[in-house]
Amino acid sequence: MKAKSYVYGAWHQGDAEGVSVANAITGEPICSVSSDGIDFEQVVRFGKEVGGPALRAMTIHERAEMLKALGLKLLDNKKRFYDISQWTGATKADSWVDIEGGLGTMLSYSSIARRELGNEPFIVEDAAQPLSADGSFVGRHILTSKPGVSVHINAFNFPCWGMLEKIAPSLIAGVPVIVKPATQSAYLTQAMVEDMVESGLLPKGAIQLICGSVGDLLDHLREQDCVTFTGSASTGQMLKVHPNIVANSIPFNMEADSLNCSILGESVKEEDPEFGLFIKEITREMTIKAGQKCTAIRRALVPRSMINAVNDALKTRLSGVAIGDPSVEGVKMGPLIGKGQREDVASQVSKLCEQADVLIGGNDAPMTIIGDHCSADAFYPPTVLLSKNPSEDGYVHSVEAFGPVCTLLPYDSVSQAIEIAALGRGSLVGSVITHNATEAAELVLNAAPYHGRILVLNRDNAKASTGHGSPLAPLVHGGPGRAGGGEELGGVRAIKHYMQRTALQGSPSMLTAMTREYTAGADKIRSPIHPFRKYFDELQISESLTTHRRTVTEADIVNFGCLSGDHFYAHFDDIAAKDSLFGQRVAHGYFVLSAAAGLFVDPAPGPVLANYGLENLRFIAPVAIGDTIQADITVKQKIKKTRRPDEARATGVVVWDVLVRNQNDETVAVYDIMTLVERKEASQ
Amino acid sequence: MKAKSYVYGAWHQGDAEGVSVANAITGEPICSVSSDGIDFEQVVRFGKEVGGPALRAMTIHERAEMLKALGLKLLDNKKRFYDISQWTGATKADSWVDIEGGLGTMLSYSSIARRELGNEPFIVEDAAQPLSADGSFVGRHILTSKPGVSVHINAFNFPCWGMLEKIAPSLIAGVPVIVKPATQSAYLTQAMVEDMVESGLLPKGAIQLICGSVGDLLDHLREQDCVTFTGSASTGQMLKVHPNIVANSIPFNMEADSLNCSILGESVKEEDPEFGLFIKEITREMTIKAGQKCTAIRRALVPRSMINAVNDALKTRLSGVAIGDPSVEGVKMGPLIGKGQREDVASQVSKLCEQADVLIGGNDAPMTIIGDHCSADAFYPPTVLLSKNPSEDGYVHSVEAFGPVCTLLPYDSVSQAIEIAALGRGSLVGSVITHNATEAAELVLNAAPYHGRILVLNRDNAKASTGHGSPLAPLVHGGPGRAGGGEELGGVRAIKHYMQRTALQGSPSMLTAMTREYTAGADKIRSPIHPFRKYFDELQISESLTTHRRTVTEADIVNFGCLSGDHFYAHFDDIAAKDSLFGQRVAHGYFVLSAAAGLFVDPAPGPVLANYGLENLRFIAPVAIGDTIQADITVKQKIKKTRRPDEARATGVVVWDVLVRNQNDETVAVYDIMTLVERKEASQ
Repeated sequence: MKAKSYVYGAWHQGDAEGVSVANAITGEPICSVSSDGIDFEQVVRFGKEVGGPALRAMTIHERAEMLKALGLKLLDNKKRFYDISQWTGATKADSWVDIEGGLGTMLSYSSIARRELGNEPFIVEDAAQPLSADGSFVGRHILTSKPGVSVHINAFNFPCWGMLEKIAPSLIAGVPVIVKPATQSAYLTQAMVEDMVESGLLPKGAIQLICGSVGDLLDHLREQDCVTFTGSASTGQMLKVHPNIVANSIPFNMEADSLNCSILGESVKEEDPEFGLFIKEITREMTIKAGQKCTAIRRALVPRSMINAVNDALKTRLSGVAIGDPSVEGVKMGPLIGKGQREDVASQVSKLCEQADVLIGGNDAPMTIIGDHCSADAFYPPTVLLSKNPSEDGYVHSVEAFGPVCTLLPYDSVSQAIEIAALGRGSLVGSVITHNATEAAELVLNAAPYHGRILVLNRDNAKASTGHGSPLAPLVHGGPGRAGGGEELGGVRAIKHYMQRTALQGSPSMLTAMTREYTAGADKIRSPIHPFRKYFDELQISESLTTHRRTVTEADIVNFGCLSGDHFYAHFDDIAAKDSLFGQRVAHGYFVLSAAAGLFVDPAPGPVLANYGLENLRFIAPVAIGDTIQADITVKQKIKKTRRPDEARATGVVVWDVLVRNQNDETVAVYDIMTLVERKEASQ
Repeated sequence: MKAKSYVYGAWHQGDAEGVSVANAITGEPICSVSSDGIDFEQVVRFGKEVGGPALRAMTIHERAEMLKALGLKLLDNKKRFYDISQWTGATKADSWVDIEGGLGTMLSYSSIARRELGNEPFIVEDAAQPLSADGSFVGRHILTSKPGVSVHINAFNFPCWGMLEKIAPSLIAGVPVIVKPATQSAYLTQAMVEDMVESGLLPKGAIQLICGSVGDLLDHLREQDCVTFTGSASTGQMLKVHPNIVANSIPFNMEADSLNCSILGESVKEEDPEFGLFIKEITREMTIKAGQKCTAIRRALVPRSMINAVNDALKTRLSGVAIGDPSVEGVKMGPLIGKGQREDVASQVSKLCEQADVLIGGNDAPMTIIGDHCSADAFYPPTVLLSKNPSEDGYVHSVEAFGPVCTLLPYDSVSQAIEIAALGRGSLVGSVITHNATEAAELVLNAAPYHGRILVLNRDNAKASTGHGSPLAPLVHGGPGRAGGGEELGGVRAIKHYMQRTALQGSPSMLTAMTREYTAGADKIRSPIHPFRKYFDELQISESLTTHRRTVTEADIVNFGCLSGDHFYAHFDDIAAKDSLFGQRVAHGYFVLSAAAGLFVDPAPGPVLANYGLENLRFIAPVAIGDTIQADITVKQKIKKTRRPDEARATGVVVWDVLVRNQNDETVAVYDIMTLVERKEASQ
């Protein structure tokens, strides 16, 4: 069998024989992988000219809805992926991380985009910035889709997750993807891409797949393209300095394996739940994916007095890990991805052993492999080493055995633990296991500059924790230095990686036209119809109502205090109020809010269904007895929502800019209110 | 005279003779520049070991206050800088941009940091992210100072601004700086650093200066350091692939000269104010700093029918620009930085002329140079070219004459203008001159991916506009592709460039301990004293009050409607309310807010001076007649403010997390309120 690529809208089988890929368990050949014959210039052009325009014609919510449908569809097909995943040596738990973890990440991105971003093709960022005293010159940042492609070069260990966590933000950003999985497990990526294409849910050109070498692909990229890389530091660094990438300042987001550490707190005693959690976490990180994880714990920092206890506990726990064919009941750990990987791990362990002692496992350890069809080629036993000089800049901080291998590093004080952690010179993730908040804060705040993520694990969150090794969609994944200096995931941040941030400057009206959000000071649209009587579809950005006025009286303050129960001295105590910031009795801020609502709310049933939130409220000036207030309410932003089958009404969110003024035209309060407004088009 | 460097706390004169630098106007030597004899490894170590710890011991506001004092001190000395700046050929207006523009940027950063960031040594970013359904596992991003140095390699054209716009965010981030100015104008940077050192306002090691070559400096950087570069793309690309920078994933923020465009809108007529604004802007960008600006307009896109009008108008305007010694009254443009620069510009103009015609100026144009002591070596006349084939990927889009040179590019349609703009393959800035919002939006949204900043200029903002060429502290500066792909300024973004973002995961209590902000779900601190009776200094993060309860009655709703004037049907119309989202009459949201304040406000005068704002309000569940509500108010964040001499009381901001529950312990509303609270320590 030959692996296939999906390029310029068609499946392509490599012209040459290519690289032979074997089943990790049996050693039998699965397929050969070759990209020979692919015209890489055409791949880039097809993405750019066919995929890009189709994606950019959609709004962010439309792209997110598309990914939701795709993710759910692929979940329906998951059995197929689980079956194929076994060939990589994955246990069911391993496959779950890759397949359902990956699809879950795609679905999370769909939710994040719809929840946190507007429903336009672009992203408007932060509040408008005043750039002049007269209000006629303002600035704001916008992010637009790059009219290029994103190339994703992935590692062998997560053929699904590795693809999905990158394509989801790229596609939501409106940028077509070219996925290049690692050769050893490309067949699983291929299977998932087959189902994506089959689904018909993605526009043509939105995704292309290259199984095999990328040939001269990088030579055809230009300044609007970007590249992500997950894998070894050496390959990543080589690609990063590719002349074309450098000459075009092509963003190169790199995530490399690192020497991640986990620190058992000094305060933890053997009988504490945290001790058991530490042992469990180390074991889990060593055995899941047979330790082939860029986030696995390679360095376990242990108070010197606890080394023996940790060693004993790990011995007990690891001896219970059955190794073999994952399809056999009870097997907890499978083989490495192949013979070459096993050889590599063995050679790195040899190197580590020059400065460390073997406590458990090792190159010469006997190993029972369960299963009739197993070849011994790719199996490696869980191995625990003990570093002799953890404070030295030795192999334990630079040599990575990418398998079920972990080294214990004894430490004598919290400050020494911090120093040892930093010797990793940049990691994807660290963890601290302690129930002592002071200890955690000291360790974490000092170790933070060296880590992209830090987990604090203890009895309070052990049940809910997703563990040391799991990147999550809302949190950044990537670390400094050795970890590559890149940043993936992290909620909307990852979407923005594929877009260009541009600072716009202009008059408020121009900014309103460009960002499709009302900017304070822009021309307003007046209508004879009260805006609360209009459907979502009928309301225009900048549509505004100036209310009637109201004079605030002493009786209002008295009544409001009695009704609310708020008898703060600034409202009720003439003597103390004179001494206060206000210099006199003033109305309650919440009275001003309430009275403003009384000015602009239209009582009868209408399309405005509810006011569900309020943001950015600032009381700018106090309202004194006798002051007369008036409000301006203006459509600031409209976010069209997709109607779910269970929803009675189709709706959208309308954010209103509210400004309350006094008789001297001084601003008294500003805020935004969020309302749910019925849509006419779909509701009737 | 020899230029001096400031390294490891002392002034150093280069051992070798070094490069001779001449006065741009007279051609007479000013000084020689050499860094020979500097131990660059010690420079890095001194910054890291002496400057870093001192800066990190300060909070962000303390660092910002320090820069404010420094900026004001340097403004006092500005006369000295203006005098020296003349030697670079700068007019008074040119010097203003460099000196006062630079110091203004530093002062802006001080304000931005104090206004937008908390007063801790680190930055806590975004809201906490729930990571589990049971609330025991949450995540949040923190940014901590990198324990390294930042190296700033700057261009010759802005010896002050170039330094200040970079050191301000770095120092606020807690990262010591090593400044390397361009040799040609290093003497001005040196003068300003002298006054910084003299002021005694910066801790030892916070700033070092290298005049001359950086030698093997880059070889001594590690993963916690970072480099910024401003200058030519070729030098930048060479440094970016320095093996040590690549091997350590050292962030390299590059800002390179680019072929920035300005587009005169198709809708603009010769008699419109926008026509004059376009001519003025082109002229200004050509002549200020004699066009030696990375943001200058190199490509002016003009509707074909307007080319002659633009040419005529530019001719008139440019003929009025007196060239010569800027110290002579009436001189509007000075020389280039030196003879070499003039030769470079002339050679680039020759190249451009292979595909363009000279309309104004050029290599052979006669030029009157005003002033008795001028050498002709460095003067170059304002030059306007006309591109023959603007839609081709020719020299006009890739060759930069870094002087008073601009090329006109005729276009025939908006879509062609967009294509031509994109041929620059990445620019720092573009501008669109039009009063037509539709035209502006089309041009800007399509050109945005190619630009770091876009200005829309017209009659409405002309007076307030800071112009095409001026980067501003709140807005990003940097562009994709040819512009280097970097990002400077942009408000707090620039501060974060020097810090490491880390995703923290843990229980709410652990997150609270690490971030020093209360995270919902964390353990609370109870006190017998009402929190509104406590001074800022006495309040602890997580200190919480659970109020008494209140049953909401029909009378409350009626009274609240009558008092506020808000008679929305959901509160008053039994029939319509039954059909509404709520299914029954419910209390006003603002009543719930007001009643909650009535529950937690303590009436007598006390340290809580005012509630000035509210954020993140969400009405989670409606409150029906007969429901009983109760509030929890918890200290979420404390921001200590520096007391100004004119302030009667020393204060701090306390942000309170408010949660309103009903009798079933269901959350009814959540929000944050901001209060100003008196400080005991300084007030009494």
